[in-house]
This record gives sequence, C-alpha cells and structure tokens, in this order.
Amino acid sequence: MPDSSEIVVPSPGITRLPVQKIAGSSLRATSDPIAIEDPLEIRIQYGPAGHRQEHSLSVTMRTPGNDEELALGWLYTEGIVQTPAKDIPTRSTPNTITILLPEGQTPDLSRSQRHSYTSSSCGVCGKTSLDSLQADIPKAADTELTIPATLLYDLPNLLREGQDIFDATGGLHAAGLFDNEGRLLALREDIGRHNALDKLIGHALQQQWLPASQTVLLLSGRACFELIQKAAMAGIRIVAAVGPPSSLAIRHAEDTGITLIGFLRQQRFNIYSGANRIHV
Amino acid sequence: MPDSSEIVVPSPGITRLPVQKIAGSSLRATSDPIAIEDPLEIRIQYGPAGHRQEHSLSVTMRTPGNDEELALGWLYTEGIVQTPAKDIPTRSTPNTITILLPEGQTPDLSRSQRHSYTSSSCGVCGKTSLDSLQADIPKAADTELTIPATLLYDLPNLLREGQDIFDATGGLHAAGLFDNEGRLLALREDIGRHNALDKLIGHALQQQWLPASQTVLLLSGRACFELIQKAAMAGIRIVAAVGPPSSLAIRHAEDTGITLIGFLRQQRFNIYSGANRIHV
Repeated sequence: MPDSSEIVVPSPGITRLPVQKIAGSSLRATSDPIAIEDPLEIRIQYGPAGHRQEHSLSVTMRTPGNDEELALGWLYTEGIVQTPAKDIPTRSTPNTITILLPEGQTPDLSRSQRHSYTSSSCGVCGKTSLDSLQADIPKAADTELTIPATLLYDLPNLLREGQDIFDATGGLHAAGLFDNEGRLLALREDIGRHNALDKLIGHALQQQWLPASQTVLLLSGRACFELIQKAAMAGIRIVAAVGPPSSLAIRHAEDTGITLIGFLRQQRFNIYSGANRIHV
Repeated sequence: MPDSSEIVVPSPGITRLPVQKIAGSSLRATSDPIAIEDPLEIRIQYGPAGHRQEHSLSVTMRTPGNDEELALGWLYTEGIVQTPAKDIPTRSTPNTITILLPEGQTPDLSRSQRHSYTSSSCGVCGKTSLDSLQADIPKAADTELTIPATLLYDLPNLLREGQDIFDATGGLHAAGLFDNEGRLLALREDIGRHNALDKLIGHALQQQWLPASQTVLLLSGRACFELIQKAAMAGIRIVAAVGPPSSLAIRHAEDTGITLIGFLRQQRFNIYSGANRIHV
C-alpha cells in the first residue's frame, strides 16, 4: 500500500486523494497518491492551407503525461499516419490533443474505421468486423538480431526500477524498450497497457528509432494480440512479457515473425515463437 | 509457470501450445496450457415478426466460454437492453453471438453510439465525445447493506480458489460476486477484466439477481472507471479490488454512491468512498 513518504517526484499522472486505511480492527484516515485515469480525445487536422479538415478519431482513458507520444504512437500503430516524421506539431488541452499534419501528408482514415463500438478486454476495441482485426503488417524479415538468454534476465528489474508511478500508486502497466545489449532506452507507464506501448512507440517515432528492429520490448504484464500488433507495426523483433501470452498473441507473433517470450521472471522464461533469435 | 500436470478440467478458454522453457542454460521443449484470446462479435436482432432487423454492435477480444452471459452483460451494462429478462434466446457461432430480442422489446441503439473508434486502456473504448462517457446511472440509494471489515478479508482467497483458468495458464482477470455474508455466488474469468465483469453481470441477469444491491463485487486487479460504471448499472453497492483504484474510479464511485475498496490483501484494505457501509 503506497504511503505519503514514498512520493519523491510529482508527476502529471498522480493525484492525492483521501483514504481510510483498515488493518485488523484499526482505522486510519489519511491520503494516498492515486494513478490518474482521464479521457483523452485524439484529433487530427490535415489538408492544404485554407482547406484544413479536422476529425475526432478516438477517445481513450489514459494516465495523463506524454499525451503527444500517445497520440503519435496510436496513429502510427493503427496505420493512420505512416510517415515517421520527427516534429509533427500538436495542439492540446488537458483532455484533447490534435495532431497537425503538415500539408501534403494525408491520414489514412479508412484505418480508423476498423474501430467502432464496444468495450474491450485487451485493447482490441470496436473492430467493425472480424476481418478487419489485423492491420496490414509486413512479416518481419529475419534480421541478424540475436541475444543471449542471460541478457533477458536483467530486464524486469530495470523496468521495475524505472516505474515511478507504479512505485507511488501501487501498480501501473509499463512498456520498456531496450537495445540489443540490454540497456533501457525508454520506458512509459499508463493505466492502460496499450497506452503505455503507444506512448513508448510515439517516443521512438519522435526519436526516429523506427523500425526498431534491433531492440527488445518488455511488457510488464500479459502479452495479448493488440500489443503484438503494435510491436509489429514498430518493426520490433523480440517481445518479452513478464506475464503469460494469449493464444492469439502467439499466433500473431508467428505470423509477423516476432520472437515472443513470456513468464520472464526469476532467471527463467518461456519462448513461444521465433526461438532462433535467443541463444541459451 | 504452468505445467501439464496442473490441468485437471478441460475448459473452452484454454488451449495447449508448444513452448521452449529456458532456465539458466537449460532448454526444454514441451507444451503448456494457454489462455485463449479470440474475437467475439455481438449482434442483436429485434422487431416484429416479418420485419426483424439485425445489427452488429461490437467486436471484443475475449476468452471463449459464457459468451451468452458476456453479450447479455455487455448489452445491459451499456444500457442498450434494459429489461432483465430471464430467458432471452441467442444464436451463436464460435465467433459471433446474436441476441434475439422478443417482439415488443426494442434496444436503445443510441447507447451503442457512445462507442466508436479507438483502442483503449481500461475498457472505455471509442466514446464519440467526452460528454458521452457516462451512461445514465441513477445514484444508488443508501441501502441498509453494511458489512464487517472482517468479512472482506476472506474474499480474495475464495476468488483465487475458484479461478480455474488462472491456475492452468498462469494468470487471468476474474470478477466474483459474494452475498452479504461473504459466500461466493458466482465467479467469471476472462483475458479482459471488463469481459469477466460483463459475464458475471450477464449471469446475475439470467439468475434475476439484479439489482444486486445486497452483494459485494470483488475484482482481481485494479478498479477503473468502466468497472465502476458496470457495477453501478447492476445496482451493486460495494466494490472491492485486490489492486489500486484509479482517480476516475473513485470519483465515479462517489457520484454513484458506491463503496469502493482497494488493496484488499493480507487482512488489510483501503476505503476510498462510502465508508459508512463498512464497520470495523
């Protein structure tokens, strides 16, 4: 249970709210840091000067912070914006962000049509039909990237050490990108696992790291279909999860040529696909 | 890490897939039970004989099993179908389920409009605008339901003991409904926490338990906005989570008069709203 003494750095993703703590027959009224959940509307503006158009594409519940990365990462992994431009301008309010596409760049709004309706389990929300579930992802080339099993063992601790909001609030999803020597390149947290990965990929996009074919992605929880899809869109070849994979995550990893690792804990892990990239 | 010896009962939510297990410098090729993730399209058919209409409302990624409950619970907590009818017929294929509304019952399809586009963090997917995020939930009456703190301490173990798929596959979300003496009424599991709750509420609907104002809902993970919204729609007054709540979950629990408990672990918990229903 988080306590006031644990907060070191204020974050836009954390607020402080009253709480009554019960232990046995004791009750103590205090306040605790709480992870913020708030809606973010993602909008896009495009077209030639004088004829700019603007559309609302999505409302997602997210932990505030790195909203620009979240929007860029989401637009990129959905295939709506394909150019990994470095400096796309944005306009934002606390609950909306508008990506201002440069003239000459047109979003593929048909990609956003694969989303409509629903509440979802694992981030795959509102596909209009079963056929539209998969974005068009080229099968990853079998690049030279291979890593030793021992490199993977350190990653969960490195991720955990970087999780500021998790430490303060008692739990939040994280996604971390590591280079091929196991150094942490970037880490993002969010109340939604898909948002954490969108923020991370948005950051990678801004840093011009994509396709990130020489990196290892670590997910703090389970690996499900949508996360593998996003990783594939970013060109990531090795995805490791602290938790178990779903059946569809494994199938999608096979289809896109991704090495998928699960249960990465305590010097052990399972390989579900692409074992050739890991040498023991 | 799950192993073959752990599987006792076959479940429609579990498959078996090849895996290579790495520990230190050893590698063992075997197979493991894996939680299934598969799309389910929720459709609805309604209208008078001879003029029946059919619409696709949602595609969600879920763990197969209790699809009818999932569809009914989703339709009910979204406010699309409001009559807690006992025996609504359905028609299903492995990846679709069609709810066949009796003549004279009309779905409120405008409610499904609050969903469009997006991938989401915490189940709030594709709201067309920020205003439409909340379904119209009446504030819960402050019923006589009160429970002793000690009753709560046993619930996580009872939930955990009932989690068949979790045990087999190494981790899955669960939602459990308990009566006011702490007895487990029903438990559902799914790769998505919202699906687990939709299945549970769909079951409660079929059992004619709604509004479930004399029950306690236990969530295996974090409590976020959408879960509180679904609980409120089902008339549940006390929601406890093993994990932390989000800021918006707390605000929504206050708004709807729900008692919200978090970090229910090891004979301790935190109360974030509605403390009057818990006596220490």
